[in-house]
Amino acid sequence: MGKDIYLGLIGFGTIGTGIVKLLQENEDLIQKRLGARLVIKKIVDLDIETPRIVSIRKDILSTDTNDILNDPDISIVIELIGGYEHAKSFILNAMRKKKHVVTANKALLATYGEEIFTVAEEEEVNIGFEASVGGTIPIIKTLRESLVGNNIKSVFGIMNGTSNYILSKMTDEKKPFDVVLKEAQDFGFAEADPTYDIEGIDTAHKLALTLSLAYGKRVNMEDIYMEGISAINLQDIEFAKEFGYKIKLLAIAIHRDKVIEARIHPTMIPFDHILANVGGNYNAFHFIGDASGSVFLHGQGAGMMPTASAVVCDLVDTARDMMKGISRRVPLRSFPEKNIDDIQLMSMDDIVTNYYFRFSAYDRPGVLSKISGILGTHNISIAAVIQKGRKQDGVVPVVMTTHPSRERNVQEALKEIDKLDVVGRKTMLIRIEDERLQ
Amino acid sequence: MGKDIYLGLIGFGTIGTGIVKLLQENEDLIQKRLGARLVIKKIVDLDIETPRIVSIRKDILSTDTNDILNDPDISIVIELIGGYEHAKSFILNAMRKKKHVVTANKALLATYGEEIFTVAEEEEVNIGFEASVGGTIPIIKTLRESLVGNNIKSVFGIMNGTSNYILSKMTDEKKPFDVVLKEAQDFGFAEADPTYDIEGIDTAHKLALTLSLAYGKRVNMEDIYMEGISAINLQDIEFAKEFGYKIKLLAIAIHRDKVIEARIHPTMIPFDHILANVGGNYNAFHFIGDASGSVFLHGQGAGMMPTASAVVCDLVDTARDMMKGISRRVPLRSFPEKNIDDIQLMSMDDIVTNYYFRFSAYDRPGVLSKISGILGTHNISIAAVIQKGRKQDGVVPVVMTTHPSRERNVQEALKEIDKLDVVGRKTMLIRIEDERLQ
Repeated sequence: MGKDIYLGLIGFGTIGTGIVKLLQENEDLIQKRLGARLVIKKIVDLDIETPRIVSIRKDILSTDTNDILNDPDISIVIELIGGYEHAKSFILNAMRKKKHVVTANKALLATYGEEIFTVAEEEEVNIGFEASVGGTIPIIKTLRESLVGNNIKSVFGIMNGTSNYILSKMTDEKKPFDVVLKEAQDFGFAEADPTYDIEGIDTAHKLALTLSLAYGKRVNMEDIYMEGISAINLQDIEFAKEFGYKIKLLAIAIHRDKVIEARIHPTMIPFDHILANVGGNYNAFHFIGDASGSVFLHGQGAGMMPTASAVVCDLVDTARDMMKGISRRVPLRSFPEKNIDDIQLMSMDDIVTNYYFRFSAYDRPGVLSKISGILGTHNISIAAVIQKGRKQDGVVPVVMTTHPSRERNVQEALKEIDKLDVVGRKTMLIRIEDERLQ
Repeated sequence: MGKDIYLGLIGFGTIGTGIVKLLQENEDLIQKRLGARLVIKKIVDLDIETPRIVSIRKDILSTDTNDILNDPDISIVIELIGGYEHAKSFILNAMRKKKHVVTANKALLATYGEEIFTVAEEEEVNIGFEASVGGTIPIIKTLRESLVGNNIKSVFGIMNGTSNYILSKMTDEKKPFDVVLKEAQDFGFAEADPTYDIEGIDTAHKLALTLSLAYGKRVNMEDIYMEGISAINLQDIEFAKEFGYKIKLLAIAIHRDKVIEARIHPTMIPFDHILANVGGNYNAFHFIGDASGSVFLHGQGAGMMPTASAVVCDLVDTARDMMKGISRRVPLRSFPEKNIDDIQLMSMDDIVTNYYFRFSAYDRPGVLSKISGILGTHNISIAAVIQKGRKQDGVVPVVMTTHPSRERNVQEALKEIDKLDVVGRKTMLIRIEDERLQ
């Protein structure tokens, strides 16, 4: 029944194995929906000896990428080796041979997107990358297709499962960052070197891709302000709770008149907001379109089978194009390449939001007046103050939230405040998002 | 720049006006994404005199459907008149003239889907109906495309905004059903005759469509068990809270071995489940795929601009097909028509779930023993009991929750219990969904 469509898979790790498993287990279902069979013809990996949890014919396995590249029967390649140079040259070579590409490599696309998407355009092939942002959650499809009639007013996303797992555990179980990180590493949720996840780099790759799809803009990764979660401590989580907030690592994009504001940092959000209730290692995306209003999507952002599900979505999408004799029916980056232009992101100095400050003050008279005096001269208006808690290492926490203030003013004020002789340590700053989330 | 694609719109009410507004306001953006212009060439309505909030050239308006049907330039028609006969004949006639169709008419598709989709197949035209289920939320696209590699293990949906608004208000503000319904009618959220929304009929249309897309099955609307919210009272909402539940009108589909369980009824769900936090008139869908795991989507299920957003998604989808010279790239009902078969839904008698009962008992000795005795003989095992609260009209509420029990046994037991001389009124039954939601 129907046609066979041959696939070549490079990278036979966890995700690669998941894809083989899914194509095997749901073979009949996929064939029934698609009207064709997706057949893995070749799998390339450096290690073809270690057994995987799926059984696969020996002659399908190879260590030579040319076995995929030079096979004219293979029309779609799946790139899962990750990293930059090797993955990039494989993808470019495959496209030059008119093969369609499916990849989950967000780092590569965020960094070398220009070159890769240009070649795809020249060769008239598809690049599927649904798995690269939000794992199993249909983020790419929603931005490129479902919300096509909308100006995307804002994107608020929890895009990194490891960070969300750590912050959720800290909040729910009152365990400090280091302890939870260690647990996550023991469970295999976090890498031995967790920098990529907890410092916001992974989130920045995903936000860069999201921005390009939402706004048709080339985003320079370095322009995105990025701050991770390693400085968050239990004290801040507790104070957040008193103000009615939870702390989440958010990726934020806001469409302003001529510029786009894009930033990644720990953010206090109202505890009853739908994003605040995203627990464990889940990912979630909150889009606001000018027509659609709020659209919220939630699911697994990583993991063997959820990622495989997104890859199979891309495979079927391209197979459906092939069966109609077409390609690139939907512009790969949401806008036709010729309509994509550069953008200068808004400088972090210019953003305006609410702030949470935790000052470490010596318990002396006049502390509050000195701090609030400096805030006042920088046009920062205080919304609430909490001064309580035990002395730690000679200082007490003085906590404030502000009305909307400009980041430049805030940074200048904090620089002055941290020089005061009544202030014992660097002030903790966490940004608050409130009404813009609605 | 680029090509013009001509549209004919029938039904110039709220949604129709929203579509015109969106195509006008975001004309440049849509053209930039699509590479073509969507141009409304004709709008047909019985009333072309009353001014709308959009300005439109007089010569575009007509009262004669033939002005759309006989215009060879018009390649996509948008049907927004609702109802059955007139809408159906318009859609069939348009398809016979090789025009693609976009509609939000869930009632029509759920009832006459067979005939309509068969003609679409014969004429090789598209039918877009993203707006018919979940309004602006990309439900159709997610089922047909994003989750294409998955067996859908279950669907739990809040598919009717009016019912959810009423239940949310009752829960949050402790106001009785009648009062909230009246308020909703005054605000224009609920119809003068609210039956369609509050008795589950609207939800059943949407569940029938969801089932056909998820499972490739023809579903007979009458086979879906349907129970509305008009019997829910504040007492039950309060007791639910004591057990850790909220009451929501859920549409439920569960894939069993050879059968599918489908039902609509007020349901108690754990208060910390993501579906329990869907407030106001929002809709939400919780799919569990065998690979994807949980995928949760949330947004506006109705309203002028959110619905217009979904309609524009369909318009662009079909325009993209047209620009590539193809149609029906994605099977309209998720599976190619020849692969769609009938299904007998599971009989309601055979479902197994947990139950909440509120018995209205006279305050006499032996009440509890009589009730629990009958439950025991029907193999219904009690999980928790609350007996408290003031006497109302001579009876006191005795409330129980059960372990998993079979509906047939439950109905038989309640029939016996309601005949007891210690029971003063018909027992209230609400089904509970717990672990299957995870």
